[in-house]
Amino acid sequence: MNKKIIIYILSWVLKIEAIFLLIPIATAIIYKEKTLSSFLIVFVISLLLGLFLGTQKPEDTMFFAREGFIVVALSWLSLSFIGALPLYFSNEIPSFTNALFETVSGFTTTGASILSDVESLSRSSQIWRSFTHWIGGMGVLVFILIILPLTGGSNMHLMKTESPGPSVSKLVPRLRTTAMILYGIYFFITISEIVCLILFKMPIFDALCISFGTAGTGGFSIKNDSLASYSICIQSIVTIFMFLFGINFIFYYYLFKKKFKLAFSISEVRCYFLIYLISGILISINIFPAIKNIPLTIHHAFFQTSAIMTTTGYSSVDFDLWPTFSKNILLIIMFIGACAGSTGGGIKVSRIMILFKQIKAELINFIHPRNIKIITIDKRKIEDQTIRQVLIFIITFIFVFVFSLFIISLDNFDFTTNFSAVAATINNIGPGFNKVGPMLNYNEYSILSKYVLMFCMLAGRLELYPLLLFFYPNTWKNK
Amino acid sequence: MNKKIIIYILSWVLKIEAIFLLIPIATAIIYKEKTLSSFLIVFVISLLLGLFLGTQKPEDTMFFAREGFIVVALSWLSLSFIGALPLYFSNEIPSFTNALFETVSGFTTTGASILSDVESLSRSSQIWRSFTHWIGGMGVLVFILIILPLTGGSNMHLMKTESPGPSVSKLVPRLRTTAMILYGIYFFITISEIVCLILFKMPIFDALCISFGTAGTGGFSIKNDSLASYSICIQSIVTIFMFLFGINFIFYYYLFKKKFKLAFSISEVRCYFLIYLISGILISINIFPAIKNIPLTIHHAFFQTSAIMTTTGYSSVDFDLWPTFSKNILLIIMFIGACAGSTGGGIKVSRIMILFKQIKAELINFIHPRNIKIITIDKRKIEDQTIRQVLIFIITFIFVFVFSLFIISLDNFDFTTNFSAVAATINNIGPGFNKVGPMLNYNEYSILSKYVLMFCMLAGRLELYPLLLFFYPNTWKNK
Repeated sequence: MNKKIIIYILSWVLKIEAIFLLIPIATAIIYKEKTLSSFLIVFVISLLLGLFLGTQKPEDTMFFAREGFIVVALSWLSLSFIGALPLYFSNEIPSFTNALFETVSGFTTTGASILSDVESLSRSSQIWRSFTHWIGGMGVLVFILIILPLTGGSNMHLMKTESPGPSVSKLVPRLRTTAMILYGIYFFITISEIVCLILFKMPIFDALCISFGTAGTGGFSIKNDSLASYSICIQSIVTIFMFLFGINFIFYYYLFKKKFKLAFSISEVRCYFLIYLISGILISINIFPAIKNIPLTIHHAFFQTSAIMTTTGYSSVDFDLWPTFSKNILLIIMFIGACAGSTGGGIKVSRIMILFKQIKAELINFIHPRNIKIITIDKRKIEDQTIRQVLIFIITFIFVFVFSLFIISLDNFDFTTNFSAVAATINNIGPGFNKVGPMLNYNEYSILSKYVLMFCMLAGRLELYPLLLFFYPNTWKNK
Repeated sequence: MNKKIIIYILSWVLKIEAIFLLIPIATAIIYKEKTLSSFLIVFVISLLLGLFLGTQKPEDTMFFAREGFIVVALSWLSLSFIGALPLYFSNEIPSFTNALFETVSGFTTTGASILSDVESLSRSSQIWRSFTHWIGGMGVLVFILIILPLTGGSNMHLMKTESPGPSVSKLVPRLRTTAMILYGIYFFITISEIVCLILFKMPIFDALCISFGTAGTGGFSIKNDSLASYSICIQSIVTIFMFLFGINFIFYYYLFKKKFKLAFSISEVRCYFLIYLISGILISINIFPAIKNIPLTIHHAFFQTSAIMTTTGYSSVDFDLWPTFSKNILLIIMFIGACAGSTGGGIKVSRIMILFKQIKAELINFIHPRNIKIITIDKRKIEDQTIRQVLIFIITFIFVFVFSLFIISLDNFDFTTNFSAVAATINNIGPGFNKVGPMLNYNEYSILSKYVLMFCMLAGRLELYPLLLFFYPNTWKNK
């Protein structure tokens, strides 16, 4: 194993985290908050640690899948650990487990909180929470690919590991340019949302936080009732932007290149839209008798569909009070999730498409055993290798899910709470049902359960393998 | 498609069902019950229909996978339909949907009931319910293989389709002899249980019903509290026999052939025992504080582990009152189920083993991409084809599960009730949690939900594909 390159990349992660910390530092200065010192201390720690680890530049910058997985796992663990320190040092979240939970939840774009009163937090802590969403949405290692002159073709492993979806395609031949384009799109849509929100009279600070949370499909809010107290107009803007951040970024690249026909023919995007539309309509029909106002019904149904399907997790209303049918739709789209190559979590629409096609192929195979059916998406053949990986991904996902559910059930909460808690963390949504519903939080869980749920969040965001391999003893053996 | 052979086999299914009906008829005569006429009418209907359909013996007795699936689906649907008629005609279950639900639940060895008072049923109806379990446990088409001189090697399809598990192996070269041996073992253990129960002072009628329910891993009882009011001794005997019926029948064949070492080295059986033991111990520890009596705690923990893991579904106590941790263990072993080649349902231990080994192989593949890991069970290589089929089986299982959950949630019951209802029917257990807990029943569900749950029971018992293909339009097209 090339340990030097792992440490070298890790040093950059820490240096970048120090830079990111300048945002809450600036906020603390502007609002003259006492939290400034805590953020400054952690800024110094992160920077010094980064500089210290980065003193030795490795000669050999080649690395393989194994190094890729380990560096991704280590980076995200370090990011979360360091990121939790200011919240802990400033005593804004007095328990370190809770501070870590909140930060892991931030970086993994989950948005599950242990805070019952987010409004009492300092502004610097609030913006830091929201900003971790923005960082986690696109991924910090993708960012490193832009600034770090890593030679050798094998740095594709880094991007593959951190970017969600069954197959990551380079937009342009050079990986560095691909990463730049992706961050460019990300930046542009975020700014657009901020501007839109400010135009509709949202305070600038709120607009920044909410936009960071939307962009990363995170879901931390700065109000205790999430987005319920904002105007219908603002909620609608957020509905649209949540939906947009759930789309595969290739779509925007094609739009940017003026390849409109190509953009709108991506079948994953079409399928995403279809599931979105059907879910929204079904929920609207189901909740109408309670709301009794057609526009408002449609508004809340689609806000919540956007929020859950993109795995953001904002709420405009307490959807835990909705009928079981609507809640089950939300639960199903929690698992489906957004498009691959977006900032959203979940299993991803393209994987679900591959699974559906594979089941159909299996049924046809029973009827006509000699016809071998080839599965295609967008007229491209899906390789057997990819199908196998998708199948095993789902099975691994289920095993991690069941194992986590099993452990947290020691806390003796009801099944719905536990099931939705694991679903909402492993799919990076945030709120679940019952005791972890949108108006409640995760604080009641035991310390053990909180660590299990943190594991779920990281496993979900990094698509299982980096974390599983990190804790798998054989990974560390040099044969 | 060879329609003639399908009709011919179906005619035999109906004739055999007529013969099976002689058991409740005899019971009605002995106890002088009014239900006699209903059973006699259905006996005549079944026999005449069987004779009528069987008039034309097909020249061509060859059939392929497709015919196998269709004949299995059709047979089970006909069995259930005809089997429900006496309950309906005699007005013991006045709604036909309910009568059908009860019968499907019987044949599929589920044991989910819509009756709140089973004790008010006539003895003939009670024994018919229990006897459907016994028929369904081993499968009626396996029985037909014994009596019907089907030439051509392709009747293996029949047995493969009806017998549970990822791969069905013939015990001896001749399929007919294999079927005879299996039924022989089945008969022998059932008789053993009846004798044991009678020795421990259970009334003969009760011993027959309970033994039929144990053998088929069904779970219908003739008391409203399932087995709770029987003595600890009787409950213990049932615990042991439930466990025994969950074992792969190859084990007994080896024992019978005095190949003891071979029998005890079957890794599926060892794994089954291990999961059983761990579950029982964990539940014991978890429920001890409530019971406060070590022998009684162990007794109930292992009774319930036997009942749920083998997918029988009897209860010695209201396990819905147990802590969440124990209930989650029960839920997990509901899905794992019994061994392949037993009468139990669920996903089957051997499939779970293949999945675990496959995940491990995938992790190792990430670390050493050039080593191709071969998965073995009992020193035999598991073919890629089998692995692929197991993976797709699980995915199909999940899709059927989610779809069913989605539909029944229209009834607006809570998530735990709905989730456990689908789990308990698709895995052929019977009781679930909350509103479908062991002391309650399925009657509150709407007619639509009841049909969905019947679909789940049949899909679970026949391992998905026969039923899916039956309702898949392409199956019926001749290309």
